[in-house]
Amino acid sequence: MSGAYRLLAERFARLADLEGALAVLAWDQAVWMPKGGAEARGRQIATLRRLQHELITAPEVGPLLDDARTLASELDPWQQANLREMERLWRMATAVDPALVERAAEATTRAELVWREAREKSDFALLAPHLAVVVDLERERARQLAAALDLAPYDALIALYQPGLRAEAIDRLFAPLERQLPHAIDDALARQPPALRPNGPYPKERQRALALDLLPRLTFDFDHGRLDESAHPFCGGTPTDIRLTTRFDEGDPVSGLMAVLHETGHALYEAGLPRAWLGQPVGEARGIAVHESQSLALEMQLGRSPAFLSFLSRLLRQHLGDDPAFAPDNLVRLCHRVERGAIRVEADELTYPLHVILRYRLEKALIAGELAVDDLPAAWNEGMKELLAIVPPDDRRGVLQDIHWPLGAIGYFPCYTVGALLAAQLTARMRRELPDLDRALAAGECGVAVGWLRERVHAWASFCTFEELVTRATGAPLSPHAFLSHIGERYGVRRALGEVAACTM
Amino acid sequence: MSGAYRLLAERFARLADLEGALAVLAWDQAVWMPKGGAEARGRQIATLRRLQHELITAPEVGPLLDDARTLASELDPWQQANLREMERLWRMATAVDPALVERAAEATTRAELVWREAREKSDFALLAPHLAVVVDLERERARQLAAALDLAPYDALIALYQPGLRAEAIDRLFAPLERQLPHAIDDALARQPPALRPNGPYPKERQRALALDLLPRLTFDFDHGRLDESAHPFCGGTPTDIRLTTRFDEGDPVSGLMAVLHETGHALYEAGLPRAWLGQPVGEARGIAVHESQSLALEMQLGRSPAFLSFLSRLLRQHLGDDPAFAPDNLVRLCHRVERGAIRVEADELTYPLHVILRYRLEKALIAGELAVDDLPAAWNEGMKELLAIVPPDDRRGVLQDIHWPLGAIGYFPCYTVGALLAAQLTARMRRELPDLDRALAAGECGVAVGWLRERVHAWASFCTFEELVTRATGAPLSPHAFLSHIGERYGVRRALGEVAACTM
Repeated sequence: MSGAYRLLAERFARLADLEGALAVLAWDQAVWMPKGGAEARGRQIATLRRLQHELITAPEVGPLLDDARTLASELDPWQQANLREMERLWRMATAVDPALVERAAEATTRAELVWREAREKSDFALLAPHLAVVVDLERERARQLAAALDLAPYDALIALYQPGLRAEAIDRLFAPLERQLPHAIDDALARQPPALRPNGPYPKERQRALALDLLPRLTFDFDHGRLDESAHPFCGGTPTDIRLTTRFDEGDPVSGLMAVLHETGHALYEAGLPRAWLGQPVGEARGIAVHESQSLALEMQLGRSPAFLSFLSRLLRQHLGDDPAFAPDNLVRLCHRVERGAIRVEADELTYPLHVILRYRLEKALIAGELAVDDLPAAWNEGMKELLAIVPPDDRRGVLQDIHWPLGAIGYFPCYTVGALLAAQLTARMRRELPDLDRALAAGECGVAVGWLRERVHAWASFCTFEELVTRATGAPLSPHAFLSHIGERYGVRRALGEVAACTM
Repeated sequence: MSGAYRLLAERFARLADLEGALAVLAWDQAVWMPKGGAEARGRQIATLRRLQHELITAPEVGPLLDDARTLASELDPWQQANLREMERLWRMATAVDPALVERAAEATTRAELVWREAREKSDFALLAPHLAVVVDLERERARQLAAALDLAPYDALIALYQPGLRAEAIDRLFAPLERQLPHAIDDALARQPPALRPNGPYPKERQRALALDLLPRLTFDFDHGRLDESAHPFCGGTPTDIRLTTRFDEGDPVSGLMAVLHETGHALYEAGLPRAWLGQPVGEARGIAVHESQSLALEMQLGRSPAFLSFLSRLLRQHLGDDPAFAPDNLVRLCHRVERGAIRVEADELTYPLHVILRYRLEKALIAGELAVDDLPAAWNEGMKELLAIVPPDDRRGVLQDIHWPLGAIGYFPCYTVGALLAAQLTARMRRELPDLDRALAAGECGVAVGWLRERVHAWASFCTFEELVTRATGAPLSPHAFLSHIGERYGVRRALGEVAACTM
C-alpha cells in the first residue's frame, strides 16, 4: 500500500468522522433539540460542512490521488475501488466554484424558510423568486459538475445522489410505467374490495412496544441502534449506531408500522455494510436509489406480502387487542389499497411512480431551461391531470408539497422509483432462490431474507458500480418488468397491464 | 476593528461551533447512545478535537494576534478583553508539543479504561503503571505550559481550568479550612438531630414531573434547554441549548432534587452569558471555580436555605404525597446532615472541602515529584485519617474513587472548594443587598436571586480576570470568611470555629 493511499485513507476517515458527527447533530435536531437551539445548531452544521469541504478540496489531495493512482497496482481490489470512489468524491467536491457553493447554501437556507411559510399559506408566488434563484444556482452547479464529470448537466446532478444513473436510462425505465400504470390504477380501483380502518385510538406507548418487539425480528440490533420519534420518520446515525425514527399516529397504527418497516430497510443496509471498510468511501452505500430499494424491499415487497401481513396481524392483535381491522384478510386489503391522491408521501405503490415521473419531467425541464419557475404550478397541475387524473385542490397540496427543490435537491426524485424497480427485481430473484420465503415471513422470521439482501447488496457497499451491483445481485440489468409483474399479481391487474403492453410495445 | 481581529473572531467562532458539536456528542453519549456506538463516537470526538487543535495552532494565528495587538487601541473594551482571551487560549494551545498532546491523549484513554476495571476490583496495582505514565506526561505538560505562561508548573495546570488562580492563593484560602473544619465537624456531629429518610419508593416519572415543575421557577428556560437522565448528573450543551441531566433514585427523591439544583446553577451561568459575545472567548464562563460557585450558590447556599426548603417541602408533598420526611423541619435536618464518609461526591458541605484538600495536597506533590504514584494509596489513607478521622475500607472507596487523575485532570480539584468559598461570599453579599431574599425563596420565587447572580457574575463572562470578577461582584477579594461564617450559622458550630480561629490566627 502506497504512502499516498494511506494518507488519503486517513483524510477520508476524518471526513467520515465529521459525517458521523453531523448525523448525530441532525438526529438530535429532529428528535430532542429545543427550538431555541436552532441558530447555534445551524452554525455548528455549517462549520462542520465547511471543514469537510476544506479537507477534501485541500491542495494536497489532487497530487496524493495522482501518486496513489500510479501505484494502484500495489493495491488490492477493494483498495482500488476505494481509490476510484475517493477520486469520484474529490472530483465532485472540486468541480464546483466555492463561491457558488456558498451562494447556493445561503439561497437554499432562505428558500427553505420561505417554503415553509408559502406551503402554510398555499402561496406559490411567495416562494417563486427564491426558488428561481435556487434553480439558477443549481443549473450553474450542474454545468460545472457536468464539465468535470463529463456528463450532461442533469445527469451530473443525479450523480450527486445515485452515481451511475442517467436520464437516458431513467427514460427507458419510466416509459412503460407512464403508459401502463394509469390503466392499472383504473383497474385496481374498480376491483378493490372495501377495507375496515382500525378502530383506535391506540396509545403511542403500546405502538412503541409493538415496534420494539418487531425490530429484532427484522434483525435490527439495539446494541447498535435506537428507535425514537420525530415529525418525519427517518434513518440516521452511522452503521454501528443507527438512529431510526418514526411517528406514531394514535388513529392509524398500521401506517406507523409501515414507516418502521421502511426505515428499517434503510437501517439494515447501513448495518450490513462491511465493517472492515467503515469510514472509507468504498464502504458506503452505493447511492440513494439502492438505499431506497432496501427500504422498499422491506416495506413494500416483504412487509406487505400476505405472508408477512399474517404475522403482523398476530403482532397487532397481541399488542393492541382484537380489532377486526387487524384480521389477516382485512390487513391485506388495507395495505394493498390504491387511491388517487395529491400527496406523494401518502401515495401507494401503484400511484407513487406517477408522482415521481411528474417531478422528474419538471425538474429536467427546469435544468434544461425549458420551463420557468413561474410556470411550475400550471405545469404541475396539468401533469397531475394527465398522469393521475386529478387536480390538486391547492398549491399546498400541489407544487408546494415537497421540500426537495427549495433545498436545491434536483436529481433526487427519480431515485425513489428507480429504487422501487430495483426492490421488485431483487425480491423476484430472492423468491426464486428462497422457495421457503413465505413460510418464514408468515412466522415473522426475516433473517434469511435480510441475509440474502446483505449478501447480494449490503456487503458490496460501493465496491461495484450501480449497474454492476444490480446485475450481480439479480442476474440482469435493471428493468421495469419485475415491478410490473409484481403489481400485476398483487393488485390483480395483470390483464390491464398486459393489454396496454401489447398495444404499446 | 482591524482585519486581523475580524479574522481571529471568525476562527474562534468556528472553534466554538466545534465545541458546541462536541457538547452534543458528549450529551448523546451519556444519555442515549447504544453501547455499540462507543468506538465510532470516540473517533468522532478525537477528530473534532484534532480539528480544533489545528484551527488554533495554525501558523497564521500568531501573526494575526500580533497584528490585532498593534491595532488594539481601535478595539472597544470588550473586544480588547476578547483579544486578551484569544491570546491566552492560543498560548496554552501552542505551548505544548503536539507529540506530547497525542501521547497524553492515548495514555489517558488507556488509563481511564484500566481505572474502571481497577476501581471495580479495588486493585490499585492494576492502575499504578498507567497512572504513572499519565502523571509523567502531565508533569511534562506542566513544564511546557509553565514556560509559555510564566507560571510555576502546578499553577500552569490550574490555569487550564481556572485562569488567575494559583497555588499560593489556594494555600491561603485552604489553611483555615484545614484547621477549623475538623473541629466544626466534631461539633456538628455531636449536636445534629436525627432526620427521617423518605419512605419511598417514589417512581421516577413523578420525580421527573417535580423537577420539570421546579426548573422554570429557577428561571430555567425550556425553549433553550432540556432535562434528561444519565448515570452521572451533568450540565452540557451550549448557552442557547442547555442539556441538563440528573439521576432519579426511587428511594431518595431529595438527593435527586439537590442534583437538579446543582446542575441548574451551572445551567443558569451558561444561559446568562452575554448573547452578543456567544462563540467568542470573552463570552465564555470565567473558569471552573466560578462555574462551581454558581452551582453551589443554587444547591448549597440558596437551595438548602430553610426558606427555600420550606418551599421544596410543599413541592415534594404536592408531587410525591405526604411523607413525614418532607415536613419542613425534617427536610432541613435531612439537607443539613453531616457525615464523615469516604466518598467525595456523596460528601456534605462541611466535609467536602477536606476531601478536596487531600487531593490538592497529593496532586501538588505528584507534580512536584515529591510523591510517587506507588505511594498514593498510603498517602491517601493517611490524609483521610488526619483530615476526616476515617480510613477508607478499601481503595475502591479510597484513592480509586475519582476519574480525574486517570484522565490527566490535575489542577481541577481545588476549583470545587474555591467555588464553594466564592458561592458563600457571593451569597453573603446578595443577602445584604436583597433583604427580602428569604421571603422570595420561601415562596419559590428565585428570579431576583438569579437576576443578582446574572448581573454580578454571568453577564461579565470573561471580561474581567478571576480576581477582578470576585472583587467587583462581592466588594472584596476572595477569602474563606463568608464560607466559615455560613457554616458556623447553618450548622450551629460558630463556637467551635471561633475557638479554633482564636487559637490559630
